Amino acid sequence: MGHAIVTHYLGAADAAHIVQRLGLAHCLRGMADAIEADFRRWPAFDKSARVAHHSAGGVIELMPISDDQAYSFKYVNGHPGNHRLGLPTVMAFGVLADVATGVPELLSELTLTTALRTAAVSAVAARALARPDSRVMALIGNGAQSEFQALAFHHLLGVHTLRLFDVDARATAKLARNLADTGLHVQPCHSAADAVQGADIVTTITADKANATIVTADMLRPGMHLNAVGGDCPGKTELAPEVLLAADVFVEYAPQTRVEGEVQQMPPDFPVTELWQVLTGQAPGRRHREQVTVFDSVGFALEDFSALCFMRDCAQQLGLLRTLALMPELDDPKDLFALLSTPATTRVQAA
Amino acid sequence: MGHAIVTHYLGAADAAHIVQRLGLAHCLRGMADAIEADFRRWPAFDKSARVAHHSAGGVIELMPISDDQAYSFKYVNGHPGNHRLGLPTVMAFGVLADVATGVPELLSELTLTTALRTAAVSAVAARALARPDSRVMALIGNGAQSEFQALAFHHLLGVHTLRLFDVDARATAKLARNLADTGLHVQPCHSAADAVQGADIVTTITADKANATIVTADMLRPGMHLNAVGGDCPGKTELAPEVLLAADVFVEYAPQTRVEGEVQQMPPDFPVTELWQVLTGQAPGRRHREQVTVFDSVGFALEDFSALCFMRDCAQQLGLLRTLALMPELDDPKDLFALLSTPATTRVQAA
Repeated sequence: MGHAIVTHYLGAADAAHIVQRLGLAHCLRGMADAIEADFRRWPAFDKSARVAHHSAGGVIELMPISDDQAYSFKYVNGHPGNHRLGLPTVMAFGVLADVATGVPELLSELTLTTALRTAAVSAVAARALARPDSRVMALIGNGAQSEFQALAFHHLLGVHTLRLFDVDARATAKLARNLADTGLHVQPCHSAADAVQGADIVTTITADKANATIVTADMLRPGMHLNAVGGDCPGKTELAPEVLLAADVFVEYAPQTRVEGEVQQMPPDFPVTELWQVLTGQAPGRRHREQVTVFDSVGFALEDFSALCFMRDCAQQLGLLRTLALMPELDDPKDLFALLSTPATTRVQAA
Repeated sequence: MGHAIVTHYLGAADAAHIVQRLGLAHCLRGMADAIEADFRRWPAFDKSARVAHHSAGGVIELMPISDDQAYSFKYVNGHPGNHRLGLPTVMAFGVLADVATGVPELLSELTLTTALRTAAVSAVAARALARPDSRVMALIGNGAQSEFQALAFHHLLGVHTLRLFDVDARATAKLARNLADTGLHVQPCHSAADAVQGADIVTTITADKANATIVTADMLRPGMHLNAVGGDCPGKTELAPEVLLAADVFVEYAPQTRVEGEVQQMPPDFPVTELWQVLTGQAPGRRHREQVTVFDSVGFALEDFSALCFMRDCAQQLGLLRTLALMPELDDPKDLFALLSTPATTRVQAA
């Protein structure tokens, strides 16, 4: 007679299995479409800036969001020194819950999924902001997320050439090796400035928690789109302020990006446009071929909401959802204490 | 060569097993001591008010906190109508993580554990605030958490008589039944006013999300201690404002309690004392026998931090920790993409 509270569970290997079974291109496209659809109904969401706990070695964040049906949050860390311990810089998991009852319905890995969704939202933004004939992308920072950025821009925007740079040459070699059979033409470069040469799109996705200047104003060319992904917390930026002054800047959620994004370097009234406004036609995206655009991406909770829903649907389709006995099974919801007493059959006889 | 990231897991049945094995009195005492020890080192914690998402049916909250070693958060809902669906009003789980790396080291149920820790912190406060010769407690609200309050005050403060009231007589009958063999003398009452008659301590732990007035000023007697647990979010209170004016009010974390607690009814400068100040001797608790004291408890993240550490230690002691493959196992932490490729042995040969 116990009322079972079902929490589904999707581990890291399960998420990898989903992507292997359905194909990375399919998953990136599906996730990009899910994110774009949710961004188009932006006012339906109860949004807040994420809650960050900073320490000397990195940051741990919680990113909650809800509409009137579903609630989600993501736990995610960022520890640039983790690779020295054999650990990923970024690890994440998240939960989807039912707003009507508060039941956490899905607990899912989000380490792999975050890499997918970050690449997907970069592609969503670039579809609205980059020149449609963009074919060459500089990719600066060749760590754990770089393959996903590369392939999202390949499959969703038609990028065919990548110019790679990382301060760690082994990371570049790893990226080139992983992209060997994808049809992408890969050009390792000697510096960030070298990589940016001839690029239509510049993606920066470095890990150091520092005010770095990966891209300076002299590297800009008319019509360039910058996809600035690595600068995503206070004290962690990748673009020189002059780059932002020379460009039109687009963000996910301004209250969060002004604290965490590239625009943390700018005054509080520095003009930015939220991406959802472009996607719904309420604000212009790229207005002309010469314009320099910047997507100052920090990662927003809504993207994880979309990604969790997408992965849940894929897992359901493939029959991959496990269950987790996280919540108690109670005969009487007001009788939590019964958990501590004798087995259920005896308890019923005694009542 | 994959670097395993171990997340331990403790389900609801595991937590119940721990309490059955070690005994409820032992667990309540251990948790109270852990909470008191952590409250005594209050300045060591990076604290913030919880992040709440309100809806028509209830609330879903995240409660993060950290010191320089460990980070924790709790997910918890509050849905007063859930019992009509056979679901608990409050369900919770939480995570303990390593601040140095961000690895989530423990995922644990917190539904049962929250009931234990809420009762434990009530007892910690009452040890500092109630008259030491308090033996009779009114317990108003006889739902899922009431047994834990009853037994915490029995075992940790020497309360021997309970005067019970709930608008749902079946809840009172359930509580009386559950306490039958505990040595507590139980007196069901016809109203809240009746229950408060002759009580040294008054515990209110009702579920309705409303500005209720369970206790009014005319019910107060000199020397009474009020343990107000049920009022814990905006629009959910249990005490008349006049009760607060007649008493000295103690809280967990003032910035959160002024929004969520009984004192949400009072001006922003209404005087309150934080419990940690009393526990460290920086502020007086009870000053004389005639004083009326109120512990305006809303539940603070630090209590869950202490409770998670305590339950982890108990589970370790009993060999009950399971593992969960929530995080990916990577040969190279910068090569997340490898998760999607061929098995590890083939991958090494190809490299």
